[in-house]
Amino acid sequence: MESEQKTVDVSFENLLKIFTVPEGPDSTLTKIEAELSQNLNQFLREHIVADEKPLKEIEKDFSDAAIPEQPSFVSDHTQHLLDTLVAHSVHTAAPSFIGHMTSALPYFLMPLSKIMIALNQNLVKIETSKAFTPLERQVLGMLHRLIYQRNDAFYQQWMHSAEHSLGAFCSGGTIANITALWVARNNALKAQGSFQGVEKVGLYKAMQHYGYQGLAVLVSKRGHYSLKKAADVLGLGQDELVAVETDHNNRLCVKDLAQKMASLKAQNIKVIAVIGVAGTTETGNIDPLSDIASLCAEHGCHFHVDAAWGGATLMSNRYRYLLDGIEKADSVTIDAHKQLYIPMGAGMVLFKDPDAMRSVEHHAQYILRKGSKDLGSHTLEGSRSGMAMLVYAAMNIISRPGYELLINQSIEKAKHFAALIKAQPDFELISQPELCLLTYRYVPTATKQALEVANQAQQQALNDKLNELTQFIQKTQRETGRSFVSRTQLNPQHLNQLDTIVFRVVLANPLTHNEILESVLSEQREIAKQAPNLSKQLQSLTNDILEK
Amino acid sequence: MESEQKTVDVSFENLLKIFTVPEGPDSTLTKIEAELSQNLNQFLREHIVADEKPLKEIEKDFSDAAIPEQPSFVSDHTQHLLDTLVAHSVHTAAPSFIGHMTSALPYFLMPLSKIMIALNQNLVKIETSKAFTPLERQVLGMLHRLIYQRNDAFYQQWMHSAEHSLGAFCSGGTIANITALWVARNNALKAQGSFQGVEKVGLYKAMQHYGYQGLAVLVSKRGHYSLKKAADVLGLGQDELVAVETDHNNRLCVKDLAQKMASLKAQNIKVIAVIGVAGTTETGNIDPLSDIASLCAEHGCHFHVDAAWGGATLMSNRYRYLLDGIEKADSVTIDAHKQLYIPMGAGMVLFKDPDAMRSVEHHAQYILRKGSKDLGSHTLEGSRSGMAMLVYAAMNIISRPGYELLINQSIEKAKHFAALIKAQPDFELISQPELCLLTYRYVPTATKQALEVANQAQQQALNDKLNELTQFIQKTQRETGRSFVSRTQLNPQHLNQLDTIVFRVVLANPLTHNEILESVLSEQREIAKQAPNLSKQLQSLTNDILEK
Repeated sequence: MESEQKTVDVSFENLLKIFTVPEGPDSTLTKIEAELSQNLNQFLREHIVADEKPLKEIEKDFSDAAIPEQPSFVSDHTQHLLDTLVAHSVHTAAPSFIGHMTSALPYFLMPLSKIMIALNQNLVKIETSKAFTPLERQVLGMLHRLIYQRNDAFYQQWMHSAEHSLGAFCSGGTIANITALWVARNNALKAQGSFQGVEKVGLYKAMQHYGYQGLAVLVSKRGHYSLKKAADVLGLGQDELVAVETDHNNRLCVKDLAQKMASLKAQNIKVIAVIGVAGTTETGNIDPLSDIASLCAEHGCHFHVDAAWGGATLMSNRYRYLLDGIEKADSVTIDAHKQLYIPMGAGMVLFKDPDAMRSVEHHAQYILRKGSKDLGSHTLEGSRSGMAMLVYAAMNIISRPGYELLINQSIEKAKHFAALIKAQPDFELISQPELCLLTYRYVPTATKQALEVANQAQQQALNDKLNELTQFIQKTQRETGRSFVSRTQLNPQHLNQLDTIVFRVVLANPLTHNEILESVLSEQREIAKQAPNLSKQLQSLTNDILEK
Repeated sequence: MESEQKTVDVSFENLLKIFTVPEGPDSTLTKIEAELSQNLNQFLREHIVADEKPLKEIEKDFSDAAIPEQPSFVSDHTQHLLDTLVAHSVHTAAPSFIGHMTSALPYFLMPLSKIMIALNQNLVKIETSKAFTPLERQVLGMLHRLIYQRNDAFYQQWMHSAEHSLGAFCSGGTIANITALWVARNNALKAQGSFQGVEKVGLYKAMQHYGYQGLAVLVSKRGHYSLKKAADVLGLGQDELVAVETDHNNRLCVKDLAQKMASLKAQNIKVIAVIGVAGTTETGNIDPLSDIASLCAEHGCHFHVDAAWGGATLMSNRYRYLLDGIEKADSVTIDAHKQLYIPMGAGMVLFKDPDAMRSVEHHAQYILRKGSKDLGSHTLEGSRSGMAMLVYAAMNIISRPGYELLINQSIEKAKHFAALIKAQPDFELISQPELCLLTYRYVPTATKQALEVANQAQQQALNDKLNELTQFIQKTQRETGRSFVSRTQLNPQHLNQLDTIVFRVVLANPLTHNEILESVLSEQREIAKQAPNLSKQLQSLTNDILEK
């Protein structure tokens, strides 16, 4: 009742206060900030409720579309946020949260983020960013160099050139991929004689000018879903994103690529880009980049590498060979908010040729004037924050050898986990890790044997039942809240390409240690027992097969 | 020399520390954080160097593309950031920084941002965001209601529906506008009989199916530059963005729109959208939205409103009438990082019809499965941060009446400034403010008289010289660092549509008071004197005209 009497007065004087100095004893927010600064992990552990509250219940707290007519005290609202939002958010930094690509972050990024937000620079133009513009250009240069390894003279010439761009900083891998394909499309359908280029006259007239029957972008079946979105947005249509077959370990099959490219050419369909994946989202595998590069060179088409996940592997002198050929790519996507351990919202696309982005360059009267160094001339987005500062700081504080250690131990942890899974009689490794991702499933020991001798129909029946079981285990484990793995559907060669639901694990959090991995398996084994009907059906199918 | 001996050891143990608790006495960062918390404005005032350092000089600090091989201490690097980056960033929060759309922010957003970043949720899916997903849906609902004013039942039905979406939260207005036009394009070229829709088969086949000669998007000459980018990305081509004439105060001319739509129809060119601007970027004017809505209804085409800047005016019961007709729009862009005073990176697009986004919906195997409430099914971006939390907090803490006060005083401040400019014998108001933006220029008193009696050639000559003077004043004022206005080029009717360079002012910072506005004018008048050659040339031209 007391809180109902406490109301804030809506006056301009009061409003001015919130734009200047903190209002009096704002205990809750000050306390939280202090807690956060002292021990972030403890704060998260204590405030995020582990038990799953049904989404329907959570939604009740977020059901009013009316904007409040009455202001709230900062401390009251902060408490409300703690109770309704923070408590029911996801502990993405937990060492047992190994289902997605979010991880614990270096603590120093928290206070630095606050500085970044307090400065509130807008990177679209120099006039609202000043030193942040050369800083972002340097960060793009650093990533460019990591990939393409050009010499000092190259970066001296191009990194800060107003008329050139080594890439674009953006909100994430999806925008990075769209940007790369936008550039590829515009370069493939560029101005020619009296034809002014696709950027001016559009796709319809460009197709009429060039006389192609269609366009195509090729990527393996394991390409990221955002590429379909990119094909849609860019006016190609999802159908023009052609799926290339993969080998036994989810890597693009070069032979199939070569055949598809030849066949498209014969149909007068212009391949505007081939995309190699360096770290597939679901399995972490890496396409044969050098071979793809050769085919692209042969066909004169843009070679893009989606290294949103795997790009950071280049930091490791031990493992960078896994991405051999990436230096031949015309463009590369890399997400700093993945294995560079930057908070959400830091993607980049880098272009080998500093002139490549000219085909998407644009200007305006009040900013982005020709000759200006405004970054906005070459970005799909407009106003953007100074996130590049966090990448810059992490590069300096962690350094390349520090990142190498992080990458190496993630990869080695995945190898360890793969070995651990293989050693279990009742688990099955589905995809072998190249980076720190792997997939597997729970298969009762007898069922494993049955699978080996089953005929096609029996295999299908067993697999369907196992899919149900995998879904049940994954869902229950998530709801229990002790640990989290994700799930996806694959079509593994060794399972006759059957639709197979698998657990998916990402081992990028440096705090995840081997005992946690062991306990994840034990927990899954225990959960399997909680589905007696499913287990019984599986056992009966298994017995039928083995008793024959 | 001492610092050279202080090196950090690259060991996994040391790395683990940075992911858990702050390393020992990390004095610099701790001190800065404390300073920031105590008095943000003072911190910015003290650390941002007012004097302009030439960009070339700043670039020297950001010229090395090599990723460091040696880690840095957090405190050393923080000091480095203070000296090289913060010192030479832009004081966007300063009350005298009135040239762009960045402003001081409510202080409580700084610590809340830190919580948001520490939680590092990924809003693309429930599994990495949980309560943040319903929160973001509520924020979209709040903005939807602010625009469309539907009843409670409407929001109960649609706000949390897995199969529907009231809009998309995104990094900014550009992505919001692209999203709106993407939806408009896909709905205009949707599946029909055996034709599977533009999203599947692409623009070329869609045009063949529908038999149109071309597509068009119409917007006034004052439309934001990002719309050209959108037309390019979406495969329409910049030429298909048709510029509609404006009236004497930069508002779309309905008569010209009607003529252009009729003419396009006669040419079998399909208008996929008309865009009304609610707050033009350069002058802050608002198109006649109701009239545009009627024309769109007549022609059966998508009506989009770019209210990135002006949308927040809906918070003001006193001024929301300025945007009458916005409720008839099929989609509306609004930027929370503009007049909702949220840090950079918070845009939104809202759709009247909860089914509208179906044409851009997409799914994947590991997330965004059908029936899930994953926000990523309807966003152009993929991984995204929990920025919506800051909008939610500001809505609650400031409340609608608080926002109304902020909006009202900004508009009234602009009216006051316009009156002040008009009262000066040597300044000329170029665009009358409707919201809190206006444009003007410095014109010596005698030259003003000369302009009125000049013939066309003389007017042109005077105007060219005035343009040089305006550029000189704007540049010098920026470099002096006491205050900042931006500049743009307009073609005002009362100046015979001559290319006219003007000062552009945005008065959204609540801390900007009238004395600052007076001193901006005095400073400009003083700077004009620092260009003796220009002044002499202008005077001579003026005398020639007046002496006749």
